[in-house]
Amino acid sequence: MGESVLSRFVRIFEAFTPEEPALTVSEISRRTGLHVATASRLVAELVSHDFLARDTDRRVRIGMRLWELATRASPALSLRDAAMPFMEGVHDVVGHHVQLGVLDGDEVLFLERLSTPGAVINYTRIAGRLPLHASSSGLVLLAHGAADLRERVIVGPLRRYTPDTPAAPARLRAVLAGVRQQGYAYCPGYVHPEALGIAAPVRDGRGEVVAALSVIIPNEAGATSVVPVVRTAARGISRALGAGGPLAATTESSSLIH
Amino acid sequence: MGESVLSRFVRIFEAFTPEEPALTVSEISRRTGLHVATASRLVAELVSHDFLARDTDRRVRIGMRLWELATRASPALSLRDAAMPFMEGVHDVVGHHVQLGVLDGDEVLFLERLSTPGAVINYTRIAGRLPLHASSSGLVLLAHGAADLRERVIVGPLRRYTPDTPAAPARLRAVLAGVRQQGYAYCPGYVHPEALGIAAPVRDGRGEVVAALSVIIPNEAGATSVVPVVRTAARGISRALGAGGPLAATTESSSLIH
Repeated sequence: MGESVLSRFVRIFEAFTPEEPALTVSEISRRTGLHVATASRLVAELVSHDFLARDTDRRVRIGMRLWELATRASPALSLRDAAMPFMEGVHDVVGHHVQLGVLDGDEVLFLERLSTPGAVINYTRIAGRLPLHASSSGLVLLAHGAADLRERVIVGPLRRYTPDTPAAPARLRAVLAGVRQQGYAYCPGYVHPEALGIAAPVRDGRGEVVAALSVIIPNEAGATSVVPVVRTAARGISRALGAGGPLAATTESSSLIH
Repeated sequence: MGESVLSRFVRIFEAFTPEEPALTVSEISRRTGLHVATASRLVAELVSHDFLARDTDRRVRIGMRLWELATRASPALSLRDAAMPFMEGVHDVVGHHVQLGVLDGDEVLFLERLSTPGAVINYTRIAGRLPLHASSSGLVLLAHGAADLRERVIVGPLRRYTPDTPAAPARLRAVLAGVRQQGYAYCPGYVHPEALGIAAPVRDGRGEVVAALSVIIPNEAGATSVVPVVRTAARGISRALGAGGPLAATTESSSLIH
């Protein structure tokens, strides 16, 4: 029967990226490997459902209806709604970038990001991804993730963004143990020399880590004062999600001990 | 050839709502009218692409990959990104609800909403919809929308949410003229007696109205002081979108004249 119709639609959706949100049918044909006549027919069908939309210049974009259906009942939205008041509070106080990420496959997928114009460099974007070993959010999610995922990531390959990226297996293992013990990830220059990521786990009603709350701020001394802000907000989100007693009686050691 | 495969996928996505984000295959079958074997096969195919995801209890939800592909290159995201710093500022000062809506079909589709726990009642949600004649955002979009849309909406039917909803054609026409003249919509109790909506137009680089910025606050005297906050933020977003001279030399009269 060959490739399913759905696989072709998926390839078309995947052709659109934040860098290239508008494509002509022939560009879609090239990027998907679909014959231009096939691409044209499938695009027309998607446009008829407002899953794609045609610009005045005949370029095609993601349609509002696709966004609406993907968003209105998405688990991402309820998590994001619970997190947002806390994220706004952190953003008011800390500025720069405040973000919420979840584990998806072997990467962090960012559900939300609040940014300030002129903030420090940050590769994250909403619905964007970063590898688990390099980003503070990813390290929190990996530290609390399944053992088989952790072992698979640790053996690499591990991209080295900067000299400080924990891209050696032994160092990554030590970093992850530290994240579990301290209850947060503190990542100076791991992704970019000028940026510092700080992330803490968000737990659901069963006490499982379902997301990471992180801030990206300039990589400067004195940033440690931001750690309790992030941890407190992450615990607030966890409580809003229904995490109860186990959160208070956590295995994380207090910062006084370290 | 009968119904297209895409139409069936669309019906499945449409079965998921904010009230019912998790469905069993038999519930999907009932809601879509698809035979349970067909629904089961199509759901399995969507799950294989992470367009749907199965819970531990075998219920099905919208999948992260669908959300990601629908969001990362969506025009909704770039508009929302430009608006967010202004929306956060308004939310800091005004509290309650701050929202961004666009015209989609004959309704407002809300791209973003910032809310405070304990804020006044508000039917809006992210990726939710409201009719054009009743909501402040809708009135702004309708006032600046195409004439044929306006005439179609004015002849109704127009749902009356409260005694104050402009649900009579003559009154709605007068309200829309007022919105165009004043440059904002001021809607006490139009959707709920306790809530007041205030909305102002957001324009793109060509000066066209592409969105409405709105606040929902308690329906109390003295709320008029919020009007300049909303108008100023909406103009800030417009400038961020590249609206230049035409914005300053607008046809909106200044509040001193009225």
